[in-house]
Amino acid sequence: MKILFSAPDSDWADYRDLLPHMLTEAGIEAQLVREAAPETIDYIVYAPNDDLRDFTPYSRTRAVLSLWAGVERIVGNATLTQPLTRMVDAGLERGMVEYVTGHVLRHHLGMDAHVVNPGCGWRPVAPPLAADRPVTMLGLGALGRACAQTLAHLGFPVTGWSRTQKQIDGLRCLSGEDGLERALTGAEIVVTLLPLTPGTENLLDARRLALPAPGAALINPGRGPLIDDAALLAALDAGRIGHATLDVFRTEPLPADHPYWAHPRVTVTPHVASATRPATAAQVIVENIRRSEAGAPLLYLVDRARGY
Amino acid sequence: MKILFSAPDSDWADYRDLLPHMLTEAGIEAQLVREAAPETIDYIVYAPNDDLRDFTPYSRTRAVLSLWAGVERIVGNATLTQPLTRMVDAGLERGMVEYVTGHVLRHHLGMDAHVVNPGCGWRPVAPPLAADRPVTMLGLGALGRACAQTLAHLGFPVTGWSRTQKQIDGLRCLSGEDGLERALTGAEIVVTLLPLTPGTENLLDARRLALPAPGAALINPGRGPLIDDAALLAALDAGRIGHATLDVFRTEPLPADHPYWAHPRVTVTPHVASATRPATAAQVIVENIRRSEAGAPLLYLVDRARGY
Ligand SMILES: NC(=O)c1ccc[n+]([C@@H]2O[C@H](COP(=O)([O-])OP(=O)(O)OC[C@H]3O[C@@H](n4cnc5c(N)ncnc54)[C@H](OP(=O)(O)O)[C@@H]3O)[C@@H](O)[C@H]2O)c1
Ligand SMILES: NC(=O)c1ccc[n+]([C@@H]2O[C@H](COP(=O)([O-])OP(=O)(O)OC[C@H]3O[C@@H](n4cnc5c(N)ncnc54)[C@H](OP(=O)(O)O)[C@@H]3O)[C@@H](O)[C@H]2O)c1
Repeated sequence: MKILFSAPDSDWADYRDLLPHMLTEAGIEAQLVREAAPETIDYIVYAPNDDLRDFTPYSRTRAVLSLWAGVERIVGNATLTQPLTRMVDAGLERGMVEYVTGHVLRHHLGMDAHVVNPGCGWRPVAPPLAADRPVTMLGLGALGRACAQTLAHLGFPVTGWSRTQKQIDGLRCLSGEDGLERALTGAEIVVTLLPLTPGTENLLDARRLALPAPGAALINPGRGPLIDDAALLAALDAGRIGHATLDVFRTEPLPADHPYWAHPRVTVTPHVASATRPATAAQVIVENIRRSEAGAPLLYLVDRARGY
Repeated sequence: MKILFSAPDSDWADYRDLLPHMLTEAGIEAQLVREAAPETIDYIVYAPNDDLRDFTPYSRTRAVLSLWAGVERIVGNATLTQPLTRMVDAGLERGMVEYVTGHVLRHHLGMDAHVVNPGCGWRPVAPPLAADRPVTMLGLGALGRACAQTLAHLGFPVTGWSRTQKQIDGLRCLSGEDGLERALTGAEIVVTLLPLTPGTENLLDARRLALPAPGAALINPGRGPLIDDAALLAALDAGRIGHATLDVFRTEPLPADHPYWAHPRVTVTPHVASATRPATAAQVIVENIRRSEAGAPLLYLVDRARGY
């Protein structure tokens, strides 16, 4: 069996020894290669920022296994007719929970006023308790759900929103267009963990950005185009949104002249909210190859029509 | 029954209506006063920053009920011979959990580099997961224990240290002088939630500040004198301690010329880690008055010999 590792060099360094080792441990005899005749390839381990764009010659390939959770760069590729799986990884989930919990608490506690305090001001005002700070999570998938549950465990009243209606202990779950309005209205901290699809692009537009509580914080570790940038900048300038912490952007790295960099109410994090963690991600890859070989259904199959 | 409310005006505003209301609800007939002949007072609700220092004339007083968790200002007062209780309050505990969790995650994620990023640098380096970030909690009382358990729930390997040996699910618990050395050695984030007593003053001296991992973060929401300030400044300058987030100080407000203000590796928060929350604290006061009247043991009695 031949597995093509189609991802940048930095990923190769992480997986070149790990993946063959774990395949062997799982009793799968395979060769992990970075180059080979396309018609000899059984599986492709794929990072959506890789150069490979034409999957037509990979006639024998039984599945394309993404190293990333977000597959918007590849889901519409007409040459990719093989089954495509996205990454759901315990390490990726933990990292996202830590990022989201940390930044929600940062906004909740008003930390920045102490981290950046050139006037040495001593103004002892205790924030409200988490129980009095409504948080809204847009997206209740692998990542959004884990983050929402951790925030609820910390005491925040959390409203979650997703395409299909959910029922999750400790969360107020909403869905649909009407649900989105209710989820955003009055929220003091909004987190976006949606995939980028035609249905979610520019979801946060001027009208919806006006619904949260005045001065609300927005945290976007999802994808840049979920937000209408011009509408967000206007909402920030008007103080309707008090602060935006953004991890993802239409263009990455965020260009040096982008207004987000200089805006006093924007924090830019450089797409580090969470990374796929090789040790756990390799297990998922191996498990899906095992399933495919055994004729069992693949885990985390992407639905091309839905786009995620 | 007459209850003296011996605390600053700002506290009075919070409790003047609330406390009488809750006493009535509990079936306790009492008058809450700010002034009266000392020999007529049955209970004193007391904030340790109040002017009252001589308790000798309060001959009839059956208990002094502190609004604060930390009682170091009053525990050694020889005129205070009545039973003294400290504040253990669900709201205070929640606030401390939020502060400690937030600042631990801030250091863990290296947030400051993004909040203060004048060069608009895009350096996408994901931090390790919490599971690879050892945290040490000094103090496993009402507050330290709750914080330690929340951090463990988030995935941090947490070591706790206290005077008496504990056994707490999910934590590595140590005690004693030898336990302190083991607790500090290799810790990457150290949190101090100890009371100030002769046994804890200057606990973090030069020798002990050299034990954590190089560049470790220190978070002190306990009391200022737990730390030898000169030793901490030296450890920060040498990079042995990477950052200190300090909420409490020998002198508060922290004087404008104190080196902590200007130090690039120090974050000052103005004694806001957690405040007693009137709604829940009043319940504790009322419950202790009820117990006292019923001849039942008081909750959260301070041990004068131990000093907390
Ligand atoms: N910044 C980073 O470092 C980083 C790292 C990893 C992932 N991400 C981003 O995070 C996203 C979420 O990842 P995930 O693993 O949680 O994805 P997921 O498991 O596929 O979950 C997606 C969630 O979004 C909901 N959703 C999708 N389209 C929707 C629509 N039109 N209206 C309402 N809800 C909609 C889904 O609803 P249903 O449950 O009803 O299907 C689901 O709850 C990824 O797509 C990626 O863009 C970012
Ligand atoms: N910054 C703020 O806003 C704020 C707010 C509230 C409280 N505080 C501070 O937080 C402190 C802790 O509050 P708490 O309610 O958790 O107190 P607590 O319930 O009395 O707990 C104190 C803990 O410290 C341990 N301890 C005391 N002396 C020790 C010693 N010599 N060596 C080792 N361990 C020792 C105790 O050990 P044992 O369990 O063995 O007795 C206990 O675990 C307060 O005293 C106060 O100074 C600060």
